[in-house]
This record gives sequence, C-alpha cells and structure tokens, in this order.
Amino acid sequence: MPELRKDPISGRWVIISVERGKRPSDFTSPSQKRKAGGFCPFCPGNENTTTSEIIVFRPASTAPNSPGWSLRVVPNKFPALQIHGDLNKTGEGVFDKMSGIGAHEVIIETSDHLLSLATIPLRAVEDVLWAYYFRLNDLKKDLRLKYALIFKNEGEIAGASLEHTHSQLIALPIVPKTVREEMESSKKYYDSKERCIFCDIINQEIEADKRVIYENDKYVALSPFAPRDPFETWIMPKKHESAFMPADKSFASLAEILQRTLKQLDKVLDSPPYNFILHTSPFKEEQNDYYHWHIEIMPRLLKRAGFEWGSGFYINPTPPEEATKFMRDAKI
Amino acid sequence: MPELRKDPISGRWVIISVERGKRPSDFTSPSQKRKAGGFCPFCPGNENTTTSEIIVFRPASTAPNSPGWSLRVVPNKFPALQIHGDLNKTGEGVFDKMSGIGAHEVIIETSDHLLSLATIPLRAVEDVLWAYYFRLNDLKKDLRLKYALIFKNEGEIAGASLEHTHSQLIALPIVPKTVREEMESSKKYYDSKERCIFCDIINQEIEADKRVIYENDKYVALSPFAPRDPFETWIMPKKHESAFMPADKSFASLAEILQRTLKQLDKVLDSPPYNFILHTSPFKEEQNDYYHWHIEIMPRLLKRAGFEWGSGFYINPTPPEEATKFMRDAKI
Repeated sequence: MPELRKDPISGRWVIISVERGKRPSDFTSPSQKRKAGGFCPFCPGNENTTTSEIIVFRPASTAPNSPGWSLRVVPNKFPALQIHGDLNKTGEGVFDKMSGIGAHEVIIETSDHLLSLATIPLRAVEDVLWAYYFRLNDLKKDLRLKYALIFKNEGEIAGASLEHTHSQLIALPIVPKTVREEMESSKKYYDSKERCIFCDIINQEIEADKRVIYENDKYVALSPFAPRDPFETWIMPKKHESAFMPADKSFASLAEILQRTLKQLDKVLDSPPYNFILHTSPFKEEQNDYYHWHIEIMPRLLKRAGFEWGSGFYINPTPPEEATKFMRDAKI
Repeated sequence: MPELRKDPISGRWVIISVERGKRPSDFTSPSQKRKAGGFCPFCPGNENTTTSEIIVFRPASTAPNSPGWSLRVVPNKFPALQIHGDLNKTGEGVFDKMSGIGAHEVIIETSDHLLSLATIPLRAVEDVLWAYYFRLNDLKKDLRLKYALIFKNEGEIAGASLEHTHSQLIALPIVPKTVREEMESSKKYYDSKERCIFCDIINQEIEADKRVIYENDKYVALSPFAPRDPFETWIMPKKHESAFMPADKSFASLAEILQRTLKQLDKVLDSPPYNFILHTSPFKEEQNDYYHWHIEIMPRLLKRAGFEWGSGFYINPTPPEEATKFMRDAKI
C-alpha cells in the first residue's frame, strides 16, 4: 500500500509509492550535457552583452568587463524587479500591492561554457558560495529589502533560458510565503520544545541512517522523509545555524558536499535538470534559535505542470529510502 | 515599474510586469488540438482496457462497460491510493505517516476522442459537473476520507498522459495543505469582519469592472488580482456557497460559464494546455459562512519547472487587467 507522509516543517502531505518505486532508469529527462558552439552572452569575450559586473573574481591585471575572469555577478538584463525608486505600499479595497522594488542578479559560475556546477574545480564551487554570501551581505544593507532568494535552474526543463551554468538572486521587499511559513512553523516547534526542528530531524536521521546520503565534518546530505520529487536532496549544517554564513567563515566543507551531491545526481540520473533553492532566515531575523538554513535540490524528473503545485499535494513514485541507496552507491 | 501584488486568500505575493506585459502572441505553448488514429483506452470499444464503470451515462438498452455511453467514471488503472484497507496512522520520531487509503478516479468526459471540454455539447459539460457532484457525494460517506480533489490536466505539458479529454478525482484521508490554508485564512477574515472574503472580492470586482471577464445569472469569471499565471481565471458563484452544490440543484449556468471561459482561452491562446482545480470545503465542514467554492483555471504558458513553486513566489508577465481585455474581446 502507498504511504502518506507529512513534511513536519511545511505541513504538506505527499503520497509515496513505497511498493513499486520508480528506479533511476524509469525516468527519461534529457541529459543536461553542454554543447560547444553558438553565441553565448555569458562566455568570455561577450562581456559587453551583459550588464556591468557587481562582483568579479579576476586577476588584477585584467580590465573590468573583459575576459580573464573566473566568476561574475551581473544584474539580470531583463530584471523582474527594479532597484531604483521608492517603495510605495498601497491598498485597492481588499487588495494590497507595492512597487516592484528589488534586485535580480545572475551569478555566472565559471567562464567555461562546457562545465557545470558539478564539474567545475571544487575551489570554483567555493567561489560561487562566497559570491552568494557577498551579495546577501550587501543587499541586506538596503532597508527596503527583506529577503533574497538564491536559486539555480539547471537545464531548460528546470527553467534555465541560457545553457552556460549560472545561479540567480532575487531580492525582495517582502518575505516569500514559503519562507514565512517555514519560519512560523519552526518557531512554533521551538516555542513548544525549546529545540530547533531541523536539529531534531538531523539527529534522528543520522541515528536512523535510512535517508542519510553523506556527511562530512560540518554538513549532512539527506533525502527528506516526505520529498515532493524523486531524489529530492537537502544539504544542512549539522550544528545549528540560522543564516547562510558558516561560523568558521569557510565554505570549503559546503562546497565539497554540494558538488559531491550534484555529481551523485549526475551519475545516478544521467545529468538531470534540477532546481535548487537556498533557504535562509530573513534579513531582519538572521540570528535565531529556531530556523536552520539549508539547500533543497529538486531534480526535475516528472511531468508536473501545476496540478501538484496548485493543490499543495504531491505524488512521488520513488521512496526516499531507495533514492538514498542509489545515491550512496553512485561511484563518483 | 513592476508591481508586487498579494493574493488576499493564500497570502502569496506575485510580481506583475505591468509595463511591458506579454500578449497572447508572445506565448508559444503547443496547441492542444486532438488527432484521430492510434489506440486510446478511453475510446468506445476499448471499455475492457479500463477498470469497471462507477458511474456511466448511457441508454438503458446498452450493456455496462460496452459502447453507447456518453460519459464514464472509472477507477484509475494505476491509482495513487488504495480504497481497501485500514487507515493506520503512525509516527516515526518527529515524522507522521498514514496508510495510503483513498480513491483515484477518472472522469471520461465524452466518447468522442476529437472533442475537448470546450467543444463537447453544453449539455455534456453539465453531465461532467453532475458526475463530479455524484462522486463527491458518494465518497464523503466514507468516514476515512476528508477531502476530494477534482482537477483536470489538459494537454501533455499540463500533465495529461492520455489525449482523450478527462478529469481526475483524488479522495484523501487528509485535507491538502493549500485547502487547509484557504480555509484558515478565510475563517480568520470572517472572524474579524463577519463577511466571506470571496464575497467581498466578488462585490469589489464587479463594482470596479477591471478584471471581470464575464458573468451570467449565477456565476462570475474573473482574472484574480494577483494571478500566478498569465490568463489565470477563476469562476465563482456570485452568491455565497461554501461547497460544490448549487442551491437550485442545477449545473446549467456553471456549465455555460465554464465552457465559455474555456472557449475564450482556446481562442485567445490557441488551445493552450491548462490545469483546473475545483476548490471546495472539506467533507466535514461543507456548510460554513467563510469559505466560497470556486474553480481555478491555470493556462500552462510559461516554462516553470519548480523554482516558483518551490519558493512560493511567482513572476507573471501579463497583468490580469490586460488578460481580461483579451478574454472579453475573444469572438467565440
């Protein structure tokens, strides 16, 4: 019989087909291997086709917005929000609206068009994480902004409009619904138990050892108990941290586990399209005892165009315990 | 400047590109016109390839599970949940789970493979709505079940695995997250104002006349103030009704506005893929003053693979006021 499982943080229920679970070979998403050739605005030599660099990692001997860089952060050329202007909040009867103030940036993760976040040098993954951190740290000084969403769409199916590997950042004058819900839910748990729900989950999962894919000195990668998607994987710091900044100011361990997880997914699912989202505390409550930052990676293996999301209800044909085994066994 | 708008019921914020809004011709979803030929398990003559009829509209002179019918409801051949068995609820440390008890049914809306819900005779649309009602009314007698989701995936992009026009029903031993949230939010509004928030929205929208697409004697079709998707359209009873059953026991007016809306979408967007979901009160609180049943139709025009749904945050390039104009002007 299938199983209904509840995610304790979001409160959503998912149906898990525990009996005839789908194996990796049952999914046929197109492989996301890159091709050379064709014009790419993110490739070296085409810097003039993007907006100007906000952050760049390049030798001092090279000029801004010219080749020689290894990572660039640029404003999105077609931004969803605008950084200049006043934040006006108005009502319209029962409705609320505000001006679309915010930032929309692109993190170009490498100059090499043929590589992905799974295949760039490990040191370059660290640089990507530092770029995330620098941008969060800068944007939170803007008092109009309350949150910045950092996410990655890998592959056209996952929403990427350009092939060259990149992440995106959208900074907002509001806290998005999902984040607000996670904050409220984890706060409620803390108020009742004086413990972080994520810390409790991590301890229970490491003890049970059924859904833990990998752990290093500081992080754990696991299949959540109630995943929406087959092979959904979360990466979490093992010690309590409410916002995206390791206590020891190093991203080495995070880069290691993140790239290792992406390599495992590539191996098991033949370079699948995926999304990942960095979940962290809102700017105004970065230090707290109840929320625990983490990264949620969702491979895009199912044809899911909206019913599941419209209803808040998911059917997942691969039990997380089986996904964990495949991920653990992947020879990377 | 773009606008951030809040949906007052769900609390989600969306970015609306009010300035350079995308017009219907900017979207290139494949047209969902049906083709003849090929084997179809839902076509007359192939009744033995589906499970047995639960409901059928057919002349008394024809035999069950044989041709001659105009509408059939059958259990899904590959159900996500099972109707037989005990509903066991168990814990696993911090996690909750229960056995996958429930129903998963398919409503085959017509025997004609080439027609859609937009093109079958109006009387057949009424039959589809009656089939929904009969199934809801039957399933709610099963005390293990708390809710039934009725939805339609039109087109492969929207998740339909078979072309022959059909809707689905999933009955659950839990109330899905989105429904629970809508119930709680509308109850909170009612507790504060002694009015239904949906009734307030309908009155305000009919008065403002900027987002109303069409109204007949009993229903209104409108573009919601903060739509997730371009051309998202909601159909609502104008008078307060908490659950899916018109006070006068007639589905004629609902069939008229539903088919009219689908015809308009087909005309404006060249038969787009879409999902619709029937939002109604849970079985145990069908009669209440705060919730207002309705149908949400979401055309699948954007490549959205999960980031938006993962974050609860949407970017919609078509203002609902413009979508309304295109829908109103559609010559059907």
